[in-house]
Amino acid sequence: MAVHHQEFTVATRGQGMVEITETCAAAVRRSGLRTGVLTVFCRHTSCSLVVMENADPTARRDLEAWLNRLVPEDDPRFAHTLEGGDDMPGHIKMALTRTSESIPFAGGRLQLGTWQGIFLWEHRRAPHTRTIAIMAIGE
Amino acid sequence: MAVHHQEFTVATRGQGMVEITETCAAAVRRSGLRTGVLTVFCRHTSCSLVVMENADPTARRDLEAWLNRLVPEDDPRFAHTLEGGDDMPGHIKMALTRTSESIPFAGGRLQLGTWQGIFLWEHRRAPHTRTIAIMAIGE
Amino acid sequence: MAVHHQEFTVATRGQGMVEITETCAAAVRRSGLRTGVLTVFCRHTSCSLVVMENADPTARRDLEAWLNRLVPEDDPRFAHTLEGGDDMPGHIKMALTRTSESIPFAGGRLQLGTWQGIFLWEHRRAPHTRTIAIMAIGE
Repeated sequence: MAVHHQEFTVATRGQGMVEITETCAAAVRRSGLRTGVLTVFCRHTSCSLVVMENADPTARRDLEAWLNRLVPEDDPRFAHTLEGGDDMPGHIKMALTRTSESIPFAGGRLQLGTWQGIFLWEHRRAPHTRTIAIMAIGE
Repeated sequence: MAVHHQEFTVATRGQGMVEITETCAAAVRRSGLRTGVLTVFCRHTSCSLVVMENADPTARRDLEAWLNRLVPEDDPRFAHTLEGGDDMPGHIKMALTRTSESIPFAGGRLQLGTWQGIFLWEHRRAPHTRTIAIMAIGE
Repeated sequence: MAVHHQEFTVATRGQGMVEITETCAAAVRRSGLRTGVLTVFCRHTSCSLVVMENADPTARRDLEAWLNRLVPEDDPRFAHTLEGGDDMPGHIKMALTRTSESIPFAGGRLQLGTWQGIFLWEHRRAPHTRTIAIMAIGE
């Protein structure tokens, strides 16, 4: 049994999902571990994680558009507006999705389903550099 | 310290929750481990996991009905419709709930609260066979 | 490699978030482990966890107010009302946020981002005593 800690950054281009599946899979390979769990942790509160369909890009676009309708920007009821009208909606969208995911691996490979990809979901309008902490625990 | 990987399938009967608590508890017992964490991972993007009240079935029915009102099917704004009007709502409902859960166990027993059960939540109208990957890590 | 199991209670004062970051950090210190993952698990179905901005309290207040608007209490469509009009909304809010979080630690410190705090989110109107199970796995 061993544990391997890694960290990487993702450059986002404003609102939208950036696939990080291959970076996570590479972290498992680099760990040298065969069987265990990869913890993926987003170190921010206005972007988040989601494990989503990675075949048809329209599925992600529909999901983003739906969430934008549910949580409109520039809502006059928000008090936390110092960073702009997209900041508080970003926190809400983060809270509705995920900060951490725990993904089993076996034979040195993440046990994702056929259509699953791991995505960092940027909720701010401006590009950001985001940091993801990952930890592989296993044998 | 050791790690035990298992996988099981769940036959769903269309939209609704299927309790998988006992299958998860049995996986811990089969692992022979006493203290650690059970990772439960749903390998799909149109069904999901939730840890929910398992005493009164009306609580789950109310939750399902509420989410169906929040994410109506056949929304003409969706572009990802090839698999039918319940497919994109299924992805959205999945994104709003959980793909992975990490549940501590001690004394060989999952540390669930009195009223908590683990559920696979099918979001598609048709029955499906779903795969859950689980990993017990502990000692 | 080792595993350390702990449990603690949180006294809530009705609806709202209670920060538990320091309690979680102390659990890592007490474990004596340097590198690994802390699993935080909420043993209830009408309160939940969220990793949220912990600098400006208005961000949390905006998030709470937004979720209260999304899931209004005393909805006549709910059948599960025995415990009052805030019970079923509490289950829904729980399902939309998190029951478990997996947080990496390194150098004996949780790898939270600068603005991240871990919160127990009480969804019931009355004060409750809530139990959180935590498990540190690492070396």
